[in-house]
This record gives sequence, C-alpha cells and structure tokens, in this order.
Amino acid sequence: MVLPAPIQSLLLCQTPSAWLEEASRRIPILLIDQANCEKKAAATAVSLLHRSSVDERFTLDLSRIAREELKHLELVLKACKRQGVQIERLSAGRYAGALHTWMSKREPERLIDQLLVCAMIEARSCERIGALLSILEGELQALYEKLHDAEDRHFEFYVARASELDAEYAGKRLQSLRQLDAGLVMQPDQAFRFHSGLPSS
Amino acid sequence: MVLPAPIQSLLLCQTPSAWLEEASRRIPILLIDQANCEKKAAATAVSLLHRSSVDERFTLDLSRIAREELKHLELVLKACKRQGVQIERLSAGRYAGALHTWMSKREPERLIDQLLVCAMIEARSCERIGALLSILEGELQALYEKLHDAEDRHFEFYVARASELDAEYAGKRLQSLRQLDAGLVMQPDQAFRFHSGLPSS
Repeated sequence: MVLPAPIQSLLLCQTPSAWLEEASRRIPILLIDQANCEKKAAATAVSLLHRSSVDERFTLDLSRIAREELKHLELVLKACKRQGVQIERLSAGRYAGALHTWMSKREPERLIDQLLVCAMIEARSCERIGALLSILEGELQALYEKLHDAEDRHFEFYVARASELDAEYAGKRLQSLRQLDAGLVMQPDQAFRFHSGLPSS
Repeated sequence: MVLPAPIQSLLLCQTPSAWLEEASRRIPILLIDQANCEKKAAATAVSLLHRSSVDERFTLDLSRIAREELKHLELVLKACKRQGVQIERLSAGRYAGALHTWMSKREPERLIDQLLVCAMIEARSCERIGALLSILEGELQALYEKLHDAEDRHFEFYVARASELDAEYAGKRLQSLRQLDAGLVMQPDQAFRFHSGLPSS
C-alpha cells in the first residue's frame, strides 16, 4: 500500500523490519494494544470537543472522528474474539507518553501542540499499518486496510486545524516532533506495542 | 408520549409546568445546553471505557452509547444552525454537578454510583424530553423524539450494569439518588438549563 505523500514527506524513517518481524510473532498483543489505541484516540477527540465549544465545524469534525475511532475499537474487539485473543490489561507503551511530555504546558501553544501530536500519531499509525499489511492475511488484513484510510484522513484534519490556529508555530513544532517520532521508532524499546521502537531482545 | 414504566416508577416528580413555560420562551438556551449535555454524556461513556478494560461486552455497549451521544450532538448542532441559533459558551447547570458530588469517593462504590448517576440523568432526560414534546413543533419535535428513545435505552443499560456489580448496594443508593433528583427538579434554580429546577424569577 502506497503511503500518502504528505505523510511520506513528514516521517523521517519507516518502520524497521525488526519491529515487523516481532509483530508477526506477537499478533495477540498487537490487537489488544490496537484496541487501547483506538480507545485513547476516541478519548482525545472527545476531550478536544471541550476546546471546540463555539466552533461548530470543528465540533462536528471532531465528533465524527471520535465516532470513527469508537467504531474501530468495536471492530478490533470483534476481530479479537473471532481470533480467540483474550483481552488482557496492557501497560501503555512509551510512544504516546513521550509525545505528550513534549507538549507545551502553556496555552495557546498547548492546544496546537496537542493537535500536532494527534496528527503525528495518526501519521505514524498510517505508515505502520501500511507495513503491517505485508505480513497480515485474511480478516486481519481487511481490518487493517479499513484502519489505514481513516488514519490518513485524521492526520490531514489535525494538521490542517493546527495550521489554521498558527501556521508558523505549527510548522516549526512539526519539525521538532518528527525528530522525536523517528527517535522513538528507531531506539530500542522494552515493551512491544503498536507504536514501540526496536525490539530490545 | 408515555414514559417507560421503570423510569415512571423511579422518578418522584414530573417536570413542573413552570419549567416548561420557561423552556418555551428559551428554546435557544435549551438547544445549546442540549448540545453540551450530549457532549458530556459522550465524554462520560468514553471515560468509563477505561474502567471496562477486559470486559468485552461492557466495552462494546459503552462504545455504542458514546457513538450515539456523539451522533445526537451532531444532530442538535445542525438543528441549531437551521434554527439560526448561535452557539455560545454556557456555564454548567447545577444538576449534574450535584449528582457528581453525591458519588462515593471510594472504589468499588464509586463506579456503581457513577453508573447510577448516568442512569438517573438518562431517566430525568427521558421524562423531560417527553414533557418538552408537548411544546415543540416541526423539526425540533422530530429531533427530541429521536433523543427520547435513546435516553430510555441508555437508562436501562446503566441501571442493569450497576445492579450486576452489586444489586443490593445499587438498589439502596438509587433510593437516595431519586430523592436528590426530585429536590433539584423542584427547588428554585438560578440558571435555566435542560436539567434545571424551578425558574427563580
């Protein structure tokens, strides 16, 4: 699957083959973490609704994104059931936490940073799903194809919204964020997750 | 519209006619607050997803409820636009805050209390919407009819879930909660909102 051009030019590295090999051995963890990621993506979109308040278009777009993430959560859980994957509690990976720490503590920068973090997570997810498609088959391949297109649309939305608020600031911050993302993807990581770095063992 | 029997037997009082008269004069505020209520209902359902974790059925049900609340938010915003209602920031009413304060600070009681608060809000919303239908016309009547059925289903879900966790505790707490609800509905309230008490002026 071809990566959309804006995402391709944003990401400084592709998912390394060592991660993909690990993924092919750990499909159940991958699915459970995917469900957690969809849950978090929905929660973030819903939390942003409180920031949109009087902006009707922003609210409607966020609401539709949140509904789509929830629909994906349901699809992933149903796939888990059919694949015989028992849902278990998983600790969060380091990726989203590291991106969250990167965000400014001060408004109005924080809101723009948060939109950019959402965009970056969607972009990396889109790339990673594209890579996963080469090792998945049957039902799981069809599931991840569905997720792939949504990640691209959501990336476009979040980047556009951040740029609308302050294009110069957003552009500068995105340069910093893409380096952070690449570092996290290429460095060894203790726990295997959907967004984890290189397998450490 | 006939109120579902479980809700009818739960509520200690109906919406007073003085509130309905006020509502008929303040449709724009009613609609804006309705959008805020749908937003909050979605946020609560999504926040409960983190509590459902390994319970797949609970997660799926909550996810569907959250999607429905978001869809309602979108319908209300579109109705506002067509009715020429300009979205503005509104302070929260006292109702949900008072119910929230009533909740136990300790687990596992807090989760059951939270489910009961969700149930009570859905039940009162269902009753209030039924009352509103007598003063609404056209597009707004059709909109509120749609909301009415969902409130009833969500009420059933939250009560059933609380009872599954601890039927005896849930039954006892619901007795306390229905009195709190009735007090808030019958006492004078400064701000007119969807869940407000008697108009104070």
